[in-house]
Amino acid sequence: MILLDQKYQELKNRLREIYDLQSVMSMLSWDQNTYLPQAGFKSRSNQLALLGKIIHEKETDPALGQLIEDLVPWADKLSYDSDEASLIRLVHREYQKAIRVPPSFISQFHEHIAQTYEAWARAREENDFTKVAPYVEKSLELSRTYANYFPGYEHIADPLINESDYGMKAHQIRQIFGELRDQLVPLVDQITSQSLTDSSPLLQHYPKEQQLAFSQYVIKKLGLSPQRSRLDLTIHPFMIRISGDDIRITTQVKEDDLSFCLFSVIHEAGHALYELGIHPPYDGTPFYDGTSSGVHESQSRLWENVIGRSRGFWEHFYPRLQQYFPSQLNHVSLEQFYLAINHVERSPIRIEADEVTYNLHVIIRFDLELALLEGKLEVKDLPEAWRYRYQSDLGITPSCDLEGVLQDVHWYSGMIGGAFQGYTIGNILSAQFYESALKAHSEIPNQIKQGNFETLHNWLVDHIYRYGSKYTAEEIILKATGSSLTIQPYLYYLRKKFGEIYSLN
Amino acid sequence: MILLDQKYQELKNRLREIYDLQSVMSMLSWDQNTYLPQAGFKSRSNQLALLGKIIHEKETDPALGQLIEDLVPWADKLSYDSDEASLIRLVHREYQKAIRVPPSFISQFHEHIAQTYEAWARAREENDFTKVAPYVEKSLELSRTYANYFPGYEHIADPLINESDYGMKAHQIRQIFGELRDQLVPLVDQITSQSLTDSSPLLQHYPKEQQLAFSQYVIKKLGLSPQRSRLDLTIHPFMIRISGDDIRITTQVKEDDLSFCLFSVIHEAGHALYELGIHPPYDGTPFYDGTSSGVHESQSRLWENVIGRSRGFWEHFYPRLQQYFPSQLNHVSLEQFYLAINHVERSPIRIEADEVTYNLHVIIRFDLELALLEGKLEVKDLPEAWRYRYQSDLGITPSCDLEGVLQDVHWYSGMIGGAFQGYTIGNILSAQFYESALKAHSEIPNQIKQGNFETLHNWLVDHIYRYGSKYTAEEIILKATGSSLTIQPYLYYLRKKFGEIYSLN
Repeated sequence: MILLDQKYQELKNRLREIYDLQSVMSMLSWDQNTYLPQAGFKSRSNQLALLGKIIHEKETDPALGQLIEDLVPWADKLSYDSDEASLIRLVHREYQKAIRVPPSFISQFHEHIAQTYEAWARAREENDFTKVAPYVEKSLELSRTYANYFPGYEHIADPLINESDYGMKAHQIRQIFGELRDQLVPLVDQITSQSLTDSSPLLQHYPKEQQLAFSQYVIKKLGLSPQRSRLDLTIHPFMIRISGDDIRITTQVKEDDLSFCLFSVIHEAGHALYELGIHPPYDGTPFYDGTSSGVHESQSRLWENVIGRSRGFWEHFYPRLQQYFPSQLNHVSLEQFYLAINHVERSPIRIEADEVTYNLHVIIRFDLELALLEGKLEVKDLPEAWRYRYQSDLGITPSCDLEGVLQDVHWYSGMIGGAFQGYTIGNILSAQFYESALKAHSEIPNQIKQGNFETLHNWLVDHIYRYGSKYTAEEIILKATGSSLTIQPYLYYLRKKFGEIYSLN
Repeated sequence: MILLDQKYQELKNRLREIYDLQSVMSMLSWDQNTYLPQAGFKSRSNQLALLGKIIHEKETDPALGQLIEDLVPWADKLSYDSDEASLIRLVHREYQKAIRVPPSFISQFHEHIAQTYEAWARAREENDFTKVAPYVEKSLELSRTYANYFPGYEHIADPLINESDYGMKAHQIRQIFGELRDQLVPLVDQITSQSLTDSSPLLQHYPKEQQLAFSQYVIKKLGLSPQRSRLDLTIHPFMIRISGDDIRITTQVKEDDLSFCLFSVIHEAGHALYELGIHPPYDGTPFYDGTSSGVHESQSRLWENVIGRSRGFWEHFYPRLQQYFPSQLNHVSLEQFYLAINHVERSPIRIEADEVTYNLHVIIRFDLELALLEGKLEVKDLPEAWRYRYQSDLGITPSCDLEGVLQDVHWYSGMIGGAFQGYTIGNILSAQFYESALKAHSEIPNQIKQGNFETLHNWLVDHIYRYGSKYTAEEIILKATGSSLTIQPYLYYLRKKFGEIYSLN
């Protein structure tokens, strides 16, 4: 036993080194997306490639593999729920995955990431997808190469989906998304045939500094610790964990639109609350991470939409918001404001989309990813396929690449596939989790009206956050809600909320 | 020959990896001093320690040593001035140094750095040196341990001085500083017995954003590329190179003092111009670095003082400064402003000191460092020794630790010794270099009055910057000025400038 204890300790030391190096990677990546001077991109790419190589060497070190092999029989005798058994289960799975990917792929991949990001920025400046298309070709090639390191898949996208949503399969997601789309398309039709809401109160001039100050005020109230997190500016908002006590979120401020900064900050704060809620002793281990992109997104969307766009939330915050922006909002009633932030409209940009149309944006991307990977769609035809699907699903055609295929960073981040499904899975789960929290604590809505988020936050910590990656998404969902993933609570939530706003029957 | 070419290429590949990892360390360190959330210090310390260990492993890899040994005879046959011979000369010296320091020391040292920095921040909050004293004890112990890895030194401080000012010795610096002090003490007496200048125009309310905007305007005019550099806020201003195309400077803004931000930014910009002027192909090699702390400081002080506090400089910039701050400066004449920024006063803070008293601050620190290392002074007695020397040399007594021994970060950065001499060597050299530039181009002062810094900047690039660390400080000084380091030009400069301002005979 003493020998095994020593081996377990050695395992944790090795995992800690990998974790610390990943923290450093995150630091470099955060800086690349916030403050890096333009000319510094090339050397940043070298730094990331080198670190990626060093991490991969450590992750695939045969001595680590031997240590895991030695510990598996010991872990099998422990309780499934023990930290020790769970850790070995996780690292065993991750090790088996890592050793299939050769180091040459990793260094190629990391160099490619930085180059593609830079090319994407240039293509955006020129509003021209063809400028970045060769990099996307390369990304697609890398994605196929990657998938083929895991032969025996049902669908070529499965190994890529597995990266962010472990255990989910393309065919299963296709089915769920199909059902959802069948319900959403007529709902969008029903809502947009009317014009009962008006977003114009949000489209006045709102100075940057006050927008940031109010956003900071809100997330502090939600429970985001300023000692353990920070907010910076970027092009495309994101949350990144440097370490368990250093979680960073970013936003962009549009001075002619109050909602962009505010709701993107609440969204990223939701991600951050998840990370900050992980059991502190897990910091430095692979447990210290959200368990899947879907569960992660459920938290950003829960805080952004289910809470942040609810009437109760603004009963508390709206008077304060009016104090920040008296000339813009003193003549706007709470009800007008509530309708404005829940205005449903067919529009081309995913991250600006309302709750009802949002998933149609995601489903389009998911389907296009599968088509690219299946070889049914070529990269050069992507902008055209994009326009076609937007017309057929959302009833609009983007006017240019910036409004279309160039809008999201994901396809310009090194690989294609598995990047988008998490958003809609997250939406579905946000309602499923919230329903369970309400079953346990029916007082939550009234507390929110008082600006008190503690009961909800504690429930989320206890049932989701604290575990980090100790359990899989499937396990977490079952533990927290008593059932597996289901779209019913989400459809119920959307119909109830928007049925009321738009007086649907 | 082909084999040697291959070996030389392999050497450069290895050096590039070390360089890239040092870039990453610099990135972490920049973040630690600018944006790191408070609770993130502990994990940052782990990250730095781990990277320090990995770098040290690569720097002392026996395979690197063998490569160098194989290349030394080849390099000996090449011209002394060739890049190849110079690179091997430098890495041979550095490798011989690195292998004397055991890995255990390095990891201990890196952990200690972060802890000490944090303790220093706390001690500053409480204005109490005793809170950080145990860390300083440890720093002193580490410094002695380090020095003793290099037996055969003349003075225990020599190996530490060698770190930043290669080739200089404590006894030689002591002699130069002694001569300088003998001249400065009576000069300060002579000046401060009068009261011909007045700094009050600088001590009005100057809003932060405008201060930063004007500082940015000035450094851009001096030639600092916004594509290759950036400016952020910190407690204690510094310049740091991430890579050759990513140089960062920092400042602090005091809204009740115009001069702090402005001159610290010009100072750090001087450091940045040096780094940005290094021959671009040297990026990724050990050449891409200033050659010594003294030469580095000569550039910050040249731009800050010799240029930035000259009358000609403000003939160009003052009307623009008045546009930024009309209510504060429209009633202040150029001559009043010139006198204000050159106001000489005995004061407790080094980085706020004028040009004449500044070196007395440095010489005190240098002497105290030597006394600590020699064991003639104990850490617990440092605040008292500090007060004593300030009274005897500068005629003032600091009112508290914040105004005294806690003011500079250097002794709280891991080691003690070799940290301060560069400032005064830099002042001496700033005048020596400028004199040589004027000999070659007598038109420089007139160009500066027009806001044209190109001739001076080009001369500095050609004679100093472009070489980076290819040559030692001694070699650079000789090449650029035709003589070795001498205090005469500096004394001549001070006497001429302040003799005129204070009407001395």
